Amino acid sequence: MTESSKIIIFLTELMRLKAIPRTGWLLRGVRDVESVADHSFGVAFIAMLLADLAEARGMELNIEKVLRMALLHDLTEARTGDLPATIKRYFDPSTLHAGDERIANEMFGGLGAIGEEYLLLWGEYEERISLESRIVKAADKLDLLLQAREYEKGGARSLHEFWANSETDFSALGIDELIVGLAEELKESRKTSGNY
Amino acid sequence: MTESSKIIIFLTELMRLKAIPRTGWLLRGVRDVESVADHSFGVAFIAMLLADLAEARGMELNIEKVLRMALLHDLTEARTGDLPATIKRYFDPSTLHAGDERIANEMFGGLGAIGEEYLLLWGEYEERISLESRIVKAADKLDLLLQAREYEKGGARSLHEFWANSETDFSALGIDELIVGLAEELKESRKTSGNY
Amino acid sequence: MTESSKIIIFLTELMRLKAIPRTGWLLRGVRDVESVADHSFGVAFIAMLLADLAEARGMELNIEKVLRMALLHDLTEARTGDLPATIKRYFDPSTLHAGDERIANEMFGGLGAIGEEYLLLWGEYEERISLESRIVKAADKLDLLLQAREYEKGGARSLHEFWANSETDFSALGIDELIVGLAEELKESRKTSGNY
Amino acid sequence: MTESSKIIIFLTELMRLKAIPRTGWLLRGVRDVESVADHSFGVAFIAMLLADLAEARGMELNIEKVLRMALLHDLTEARTGDLPATIKRYFDPSTLHAGDERIANEMFGGLGAIGEEYLLLWGEYEERISLESRIVKAADKLDLLLQAREYEKGGARSLHEFWANSETDFSALGIDELIVGLAEELKESRKTSGNY
Amino acid sequence: MTESSKIIIFLTELMRLKAIPRTGWLLRGVRDVESVADHSFGVAFIAMLLADLAEARGMELNIEKVLRMALLHDLTEARTGDLPATIKRYFDPSTLHAGDERIANEMFGGLGAIGEEYLLLWGEYEERISLESRIVKAADKLDLLLQAREYEKGGARSLHEFWANSETDFSALGIDELIVGLAEELKESRKTSGNY
Amino acid sequence: MTESSKIIIFLTELMRLKAIPRTGWLLRGVRDVESVADHSFGVAFIAMLLADLAEARGMELNIEKVLRMALLHDLTEARTGDLPATIKRYFDPSTLHAGDERIANEMFGGLGAIGEEYLLLWGEYEERISLESRIVKAADKLDLLLQAREYEKGGARSLHEFWANSETDFSALGIDELIVGLAEELKESRKTSGNY
Repeated sequence: MTESSKIIIFLTELMRLKAIPRTGWLLRGVRDVESVADHSFGVAFIAMLLADLAEARGMELNIEKVLRMALLHDLTEARTGDLPATIKRYFDPSTLHAGDERIANEMFGGLGAIGEEYLLLWGEYEERISLESRIVKAADKLDLLLQAREYEKGGARSLHEFWANSETDFSALGIDELIVGLAEELKESRKTSGNY
Repeated sequence: MTESSKIIIFLTELMRLKAIPRTGWLLRGVRDVESVADHSFGVAFIAMLLADLAEARGMELNIEKVLRMALLHDLTEARTGDLPATIKRYFDPSTLHAGDERIANEMFGGLGAIGEEYLLLWGEYEERISLESRIVKAADKLDLLLQAREYEKGGARSLHEFWANSETDFSALGIDELIVGLAEELKESRKTSGNY
Repeated sequence: MTESSKIIIFLTELMRLKAIPRTGWLLRGVRDVESVADHSFGVAFIAMLLADLAEARGMELNIEKVLRMALLHDLTEARTGDLPATIKRYFDPSTLHAGDERIANEMFGGLGAIGEEYLLLWGEYEERISLESRIVKAADKLDLLLQAREYEKGGARSLHEFWANSETDFSALGIDELIVGLAEELKESRKTSGNY
Repeated sequence: MTESSKIIIFLTELMRLKAIPRTGWLLRGVRDVESVADHSFGVAFIAMLLADLAEARGMELNIEKVLRMALLHDLTEARTGDLPATIKRYFDPSTLHAGDERIANEMFGGLGAIGEEYLLLWGEYEERISLESRIVKAADKLDLLLQAREYEKGGARSLHEFWANSETDFSALGIDELIVGLAEELKESRKTSGNY
Repeated sequence: MTESSKIIIFLTELMRLKAIPRTGWLLRGVRDVESVADHSFGVAFIAMLLADLAEARGMELNIEKVLRMALLHDLTEARTGDLPATIKRYFDPSTLHAGDERIANEMFGGLGAIGEEYLLLWGEYEERISLESRIVKAADKLDLLLQAREYEKGGARSLHEFWANSETDFSALGIDELIVGLAEELKESRKTSGNY
Repeated sequence: MTESSKIIIFLTELMRLKAIPRTGWLLRGVRDVESVADHSFGVAFIAMLLADLAEARGMELNIEKVLRMALLHDLTEARTGDLPATIKRYFDPSTLHAGDERIANEMFGGLGAIGEEYLLLWGEYEERISLESRIVKAADKLDLLLQAREYEKGGARSLHEFWANSETDFSALGIDELIVGLAEELKESRKTSGNY
């Protein structure tokens, strides 16, 4: 197989992310929901902004890496669909991770040296240790809250748990006050508008 | 908690199956796809018909059990979403099964003695040994092919693998010629209409 | 025509129920609504549970018949679409019934002796006299309320009439306190959550 | 009740037509289909053009009446949903018409003298005798074919019967060669593009 | 090219209006929204009723012209999609109008003398001077409010600005108290039902 | 207004891109289409891969800039909706650009120094001179073709012009043979699978 043909196969699979709905919303009665690609776009953009804000506050970080990680972080869902967070209560996390890793290996396998780098970045996000991976995770949560707010404007009344859970999550990230401040701002605007 | 309140909680979760799309179609580019409940209805109805046809041919089977099993067989998807068949290539099947069993335990747990019976039937289907469970599985496959045919009428051109796989699957069921005959008929009608 | 070919034609028509939306919701401004098959699945499952609960309370009933009836009860909608309940105010009910019967006759006609039995069960449900048919009807109403609750969680504010009508309907069924208790429980949870 | 309040009630019901899907497409496996309002817009516009073309050919007709009739012709579907054409094979047509008339009476009843005129126009269309009503009917058919063509471009392969039926229908209208010519042109373009 | 073939090309483009969503709703978080054709149907019907009410109050107006204008007024959106009203804050209105005029010219160009007349009517609406064009504009606003009300019943909580803006708009039309009365009635019903 | 509050307002507007459908598909009869955010995700990911491939071939380029530009390039559509490419035939391009620039100014205005940098990147893409901006544009085209392929697999038969136009477009980019090779590969796979 030529390199071109391997790349087209890889990108064809990438397109699937536009067609896979985010299961968490569906399980809470929201209909016609965002795709995994919609979400990944939100995460990548928010991660860029968070990284820029962090840098403006004097933190040192590799922003290119943040952006790459954000674009890569949900890629295996092209083969699994979007597994809801609740699934982790029932399935052994290390088995789930091992399966995801097998998929990542296969998917990136056709891209040669570039694919090897993608695999490393994908793995670094999974570990959630580096500053960059934690910025992406924070962006992941903020995108979730921002989207929850949109669905609530559209009428959804079943998303309270996302707001309840969010508090502790952010403080656990330990990055800085910035992100907690954004989440607080968002919750505040939700309350004052009476739309919850 | 009262019995009524436990039942309402259980049934509220049941409703979710109407909102969960069948991931396999989405991963192949079909949009606006059937729900898990749509599919379960198809399976239950087809299983009833197959069982009646089997009985008319002199086979002995417990048709009430067939119907119960069909209604119960996809219930845990209310908590996992619809995991695509391809997932089994990557995740250890026994871990997946153990997780599903944990969910089934929790979900049926609120229904007392009735729930215990549902759990047994759910487990019997998973084992795929009894004649009744194999009838339900055959109905599961036939519903898949019938639905693939519908999406092909609607324009889908990416569902060939379902037809390719189906052949060996049915003969592996070992029930009788009837079901293989139905699948053949369906494939024949697909070919003669030129819609594939 | 071979038996296989008649069965495939019948099942192809069955698939339509997955694509027909429930008109009652659309007429009240809910969008992206459940299909007739979604609803039939809900009814069949709830009917199974109600029948099991009834039996546990000492009532005698044919549960296999309950399940068959539930799966069959909306079948003619494959040819008519889902006629909203309000239509009965304007069209002579006996004419509507006669038309439905004509359709049932044609649809089941290709299934030989099995079809004849299906036709009898379909007719028994229409008469609403036997205990089994009334269990199915109660399940039909409960599924409606449970689904209304889901749409209200999603934002719908135009479904009050379903809750208003439900009260008298259930007591008219005369089965026992169980079902009325479930409906009350559901209404109570709707009120305490403030989501109505 | 004030006049304003009666008008708002009437118009609120009118809005429903935007939310009611055309059942005929759904029964043939097309998903995400046009609404009754979409169709009525198409019919009104096409009827305007046909009337203008007829007038340009020397025919005398009341074009304002054509436009009014087209806008009014599907109004009762706000209460019945879109009954598929196939329904007429099973339900007595005169009973269906009587029911529709009852609905039209109720709906227009709140509009006083204006409503009385609307009722007359609605009835004139039902009779299909006047030249104006036949122009609207021709527009109704052309909109169906044009829309079928669109769905076929989108992939639908199950709409052959619309094209087969159309031939005789148009010639039965007896208006003139114009409309038959348009239908022929449409069929021709369907064939030459190979998209059928 | 024959006349028939030009007409079919024109009508094929007309069908697009059924597939173009109204952007204003999407930008405010409403999902699965009405099409431009849905809206045009609403406008045409409401304009007919307003014109009849105006005539009943002694005003003189050309109702056929009102109906034609309503059907024609959004036609260029078949090539532009639905440009949201907010766009006018950023793009020079005269440039936008010039572009729309170019499209109208091209679209009606294939219809000969009939097309010339359509172009004149389209232009007359754009100018908003004649009584007929202002009736259509009033209908356009009323349809917007009525549809906003429907989406609010469905759960939308982000449509306040439509209600706020509407007041001054209607009084600016200067037709008469009737239309203002209808808008007031609608706002009143929105408040008393508590659904806003 | 606090910085947090400005950021939340900005991000809330970002979320809109998930709800805005790509108009080009709708105008060609595809239904249930990708969002602008879906597309932007595709572009960003493909741009990353193209940049990595270019670098591996010895080209020098700022990959972080490529990623930022891809995420930013469609942002003004949050206020305009997705204007179809055909619009440029009718509306003066410089006026359109001026309007877009006004929007970009307003949107980034709340982000201080970070926003100023985003505005520069947004402008650099619009000019299409720098190597980075041309990589993003190439990714934009590839995403279009890949998505067209997906819709064709789903049945669409009206997307030929995308394939016809693509040839010259890519060679005009002047980057290198790589991208042309990918497009050729894609076209080839389209032909050999017979799905066009």
